[in-house]
Amino acid sequence: MHWVVYLSGEIHTDWREEIKRRAAQQELPVSFLAPVTDHEASDAAGDHLGNQEVGFWRDHKSSKVNAIRTKNMVEQCDIAVIRFGHQYKQWNAAFDAGYCAALNKPYVTLHDAEIVHPLKEVDASAMAWAESTEQVVEILRYVTTMS
Amino acid sequence: MHWVVYLSGEIHTDWREEIKRRAAQQELPVSFLAPVTDHEASDAAGDHLGNQEVGFWRDHKSSKVNAIRTKNMVEQCDIAVIRFGHQYKQWNAAFDAGYCAALNKPYVTLHDAEIVHPLKEVDASAMAWAESTEQVVEILRYVTTMS
Amino acid sequence: MHWVVYLSGEIHTDWREEIKRRAAQQELPVSFLAPVTDHEASDAAGDHLGNQEVGFWRDHKSSKVNAIRTKNMVEQCDIAVIRFGHQYKQWNAAFDAGYCAALNKPYVTLHDAEIVHPLKEVDASAMAWAESTEQVVEILRYVTTMS
Amino acid sequence: MHWVVYLSGEIHTDWREEIKRRAAQQELPVSFLAPVTDHEASDAAGDHLGNQEVGFWRDHKSSKVNAIRTKNMVEQCDIAVIRFGHQYKQWNAAFDAGYCAALNKPYVTLHDAEIVHPLKEVDASAMAWAESTEQVVEILRYVTTMS
Amino acid sequence: MHWVVYLSGEIHTDWREEIKRRAAQQELPVSFLAPVTDHEASDAAGDHLGNQEVGFWRDHKSSKVNAIRTKNMVEQCDIAVIRFGHQYKQWNAAFDAGYCAALNKPYVTLHDAEIVHPLKEVDASAMAWAESTEQVVEILRYVTTMS
Amino acid sequence: MHWVVYLSGEIHTDWREEIKRRAAQQELPVSFLAPVTDHEASDAAGDHLGNQEVGFWRDHKSSKVNAIRTKNMVEQCDIAVIRFGHQYKQWNAAFDAGYCAALNKPYVTLHDAEIVHPLKEVDASAMAWAESTEQVVEILRYVTTMS
Amino acid sequence: MHWVVYLSGEIHTDWREEIKRRAAQQELPVSFLAPVTDHEASDAAGDHLGNQEVGFWRDHKSSKVNAIRTKNMVEQCDIAVIRFGHQYKQWNAAFDAGYCAALNKPYVTLHDAEIVHPLKEVDASAMAWAESTEQVVEILRYVTTMS
Amino acid sequence: MHWVVYLSGEIHTDWREEIKRRAAQQELPVSFLAPVTDHEASDAAGDHLGNQEVGFWRDHKSSKVNAIRTKNMVEQCDIAVIRFGHQYKQWNAAFDAGYCAALNKPYVTLHDAEIVHPLKEVDASAMAWAESTEQVVEILRYVTTMS
Repeated sequence: MHWVVYLSGEIHTDWREEIKRRAAQQELPVSFLAPVTDHEASDAAGDHLGNQEVGFWRDHKSSKVNAIRTKNMVEQCDIAVIRFGHQYKQWNAAFDAGYCAALNKPYVTLHDAEIVHPLKEVDASAMAWAESTEQVVEILRYVTTMS
Repeated sequence: MHWVVYLSGEIHTDWREEIKRRAAQQELPVSFLAPVTDHEASDAAGDHLGNQEVGFWRDHKSSKVNAIRTKNMVEQCDIAVIRFGHQYKQWNAAFDAGYCAALNKPYVTLHDAEIVHPLKEVDASAMAWAESTEQVVEILRYVTTMS
Repeated sequence: MHWVVYLSGEIHTDWREEIKRRAAQQELPVSFLAPVTDHEASDAAGDHLGNQEVGFWRDHKSSKVNAIRTKNMVEQCDIAVIRFGHQYKQWNAAFDAGYCAALNKPYVTLHDAEIVHPLKEVDASAMAWAESTEQVVEILRYVTTMS
Repeated sequence: MHWVVYLSGEIHTDWREEIKRRAAQQELPVSFLAPVTDHEASDAAGDHLGNQEVGFWRDHKSSKVNAIRTKNMVEQCDIAVIRFGHQYKQWNAAFDAGYCAALNKPYVTLHDAEIVHPLKEVDASAMAWAESTEQVVEILRYVTTMS
Repeated sequence: MHWVVYLSGEIHTDWREEIKRRAAQQELPVSFLAPVTDHEASDAAGDHLGNQEVGFWRDHKSSKVNAIRTKNMVEQCDIAVIRFGHQYKQWNAAFDAGYCAALNKPYVTLHDAEIVHPLKEVDASAMAWAESTEQVVEILRYVTTMS
Repeated sequence: MHWVVYLSGEIHTDWREEIKRRAAQQELPVSFLAPVTDHEASDAAGDHLGNQEVGFWRDHKSSKVNAIRTKNMVEQCDIAVIRFGHQYKQWNAAFDAGYCAALNKPYVTLHDAEIVHPLKEVDASAMAWAESTEQVVEILRYVTTMS
Repeated sequence: MHWVVYLSGEIHTDWREEIKRRAAQQELPVSFLAPVTDHEASDAAGDHLGNQEVGFWRDHKSSKVNAIRTKNMVEQCDIAVIRFGHQYKQWNAAFDAGYCAALNKPYVTLHDAEIVHPLKEVDASAMAWAESTEQVVEILRYVTTMS
Repeated sequence: MHWVVYLSGEIHTDWREEIKRRAAQQELPVSFLAPVTDHEASDAAGDHLGNQEVGFWRDHKSSKVNAIRTKNMVEQCDIAVIRFGHQYKQWNAAFDAGYCAALNKPYVTLHDAEIVHPLKEVDASAMAWAESTEQVVEILRYVTTMS
């Protein structure tokens, strides 16, 4: 069985590449999906649909274009890994977690211990909490290759 | 038709009471549901189930007990109002928004203009963005009483 | 068994009142739901959420506020009656029909013979096509009171 | 990830071919599905099932045969593009939009600015509104190939 | 807990009345729903929607009007009792059984031993097979009143 | 797009082979699924699970083993063709039709005109009624190959 | 909001009465549902449907009659409490837990610490583990009456 | 059609290998999925996520990691085979059965006659009860290769 893993959340560190590299080293039977992680491109995703908007409606247009991608990927993945970093609000990551929970789709969170308390509702529906990409890949290895 | 409205999110200001009061003044055909908003009680919701835990597992127990309530209320409401304040991470509020979105359940966000950008994914699936409780109640009045 | 009937579509004639009056005369065990039928109020439903928009975004805001109501009503009704008149595009009515079809929710169309051809896809998923409010009420009478 | 795109709506202009050509030029990882766009063949799709009917029942038979195809394609696509042209009622296109909305399936509308107002309910549930096939393909490019 | 029981199938004997009478004698907490059992009225249910049709399309119109009722009742009941008599094809009864099975809705069949073999697929998804109305009511009594 | 077609119903004539042969001649992009059509094998499908039963329980065991297959095939097909012949009760065919209807899965019926009346509820939810295998294959050709 | 609580599992101790009594003392807004807890009656639930069977088929008939009740109650409850005692296999309790988990229905387990290990998969999907009826009622009090 | 079979339950005998070997001998068109059957590895599946826990929380972490795998496999299989052995509580096996039942997913049980009575609720929703791996493979052969 091949597994599809969606990597949601923080876009300012290279955690996705770490996970992909480690998974490749172990030759895990997994594919990775991710949102667009180019911050500027993401914010501008709807600008070509008429570029006069600023503020709310510019964000609205762009975030809906992005949602075409993220909604599909969340629904098609077998597991989501949802990363919360040290900065920014990252409400989109928590939104993805809620979306997974409602669909009964398993997800793993990846965050430091210091934000355990504000993430308690998100972790309550998670299948695991990891603090490092090594741990995430170990979960993937166990789940996809053990017998 | 009677409407059930779930009031999700921020627990440190009296926005829920404002909405309830204004709705009562206008005699709207609505009932309100809400999570437990007593912060200390909420954090301690699972303590009676063996109280030795600290950190992650204490939070885990309590947030799961709270989730019994919030999950039911989200699923039974006709509309959710999801409030984001100025402080705290409030990932639980974004989690509820994602849960609603996956269930195709209409929700309205209530937050200031200054956090429009980080909330763009949450607002992308919302039916409306309000900046004041007056606006929320005006939406409820329109939706539930106009003909 | 009490039946909830959603009356979707045309807002420029009094077909809803005719159906309600006839159903009341026959004391049918039905309640009626409807979208907001005050055209100007409907177009302005989102104006109070910041009124600077014109064109697409004004319509967008208002139609989403209206959708809070219509989506709930479509999902809660037992039958929808969907009316297509002689004027206007009425794409909202066809949209409601598609929404019902995907939910496996029974609906009846109400329209003249001259628009049978362009409505063929909408009628293909309908449980009946009526040309008059008398016929609609006769369907309701049969369905809700015969034994 | 390969994407399946359903092209719904207007059949009297070559917008589908434009989209396919532009997508092929950019080598996007997409496949396209569409309803039968041969108008006469579509109207006659059920004639071989006994050909005596005229009017409503001829249309009924044919539109149901067509619906075997369109219902499957809507349910299997990852994105729908729904085109509204200048002519005809095109209620089938709005019907498809409602069907998508109920399934929580992302769709993009393609239409001119002059019909923004009558399409406001259809656009309210859309992920984007495009005015040109270039814009549609730019959305597809962004969604399917960015990283 | 109050139970809603849908009585599907044969319309030429008084099995429904027997079940209702016995249930009333025992004061069971149940309500009964049923299709229209007046055979002529049922066959004519769509005649008022233009009465020129004969054969297939007359049957089609009427059976769709009836389906508004039966589909709703099947979906709202807690248990269906599906009766197969000695005469007629009664494919509508088997259709209701399949509909229940797909919805994971419990149903009980009521039929004589001599048609056990042709009903084996219908009975395979049933929760019980009864040969008499006494047995059906005994099931209802047990399920709704025991503690 | 490749289509999966489930051929349900009558097992005493060669209608399945006719459909397969005609579809092959036209090189249609379709695969066919079917229940086990060897009548004796089907009746005996559960005998190896302890062979002491007779009557109801023998039928029960065998029909459940068969249902493992038929339930999966109905759920995985894109279209079902449901055949009613001249003999036997064929309640399993009507059961499959109801199962499809509840799942919103398109199906086509194949039967002679003389049994239109008893099949009216089954035909009411069908996308087409065909009287010959030629007609069925013509539907498949149109649906799967037209553009 | 009134809450419906299903009490699943062990039938040889009076834990259900304890929960009901404590909930009544605190006047909690809850109703309780339960399977039939009269062991002999439960085992004999299908005997009146022909009483010749012994062994597997007797159990089969009775457990299906019981399932009419339990399946409905599980689907209609807001919370399930699932009790595992010291004796017997109690696979029905674990079955109910799995049923709840697939439906995304919150449940609480009630069992002693000594069986934590074999119940780990059941507890993994539970919202809480309680060791006493006091704890269960405290959860109910918190969830249903706090504000 | 290729079939995916999930082998749930007992991990202390070689029943899975027997089934796989027999299926391979007969070249059945089936793939097999299974939970991790290395007991110690399974109990330790979450230890790398911080290893300080003992008792409930250690089990909790590990069983959730395992559930990422089992939940996905149950949802993706076409048939589950659920084995109950002579030892241990095996509540996870009954949990999987309940999960399958709620999803309307066919499953077969594999157990000795002496535990028929405590397994009656699990068997009530099963498509078959087998006592030997030969019988299971015979079911698979019949279901997947007969015509």
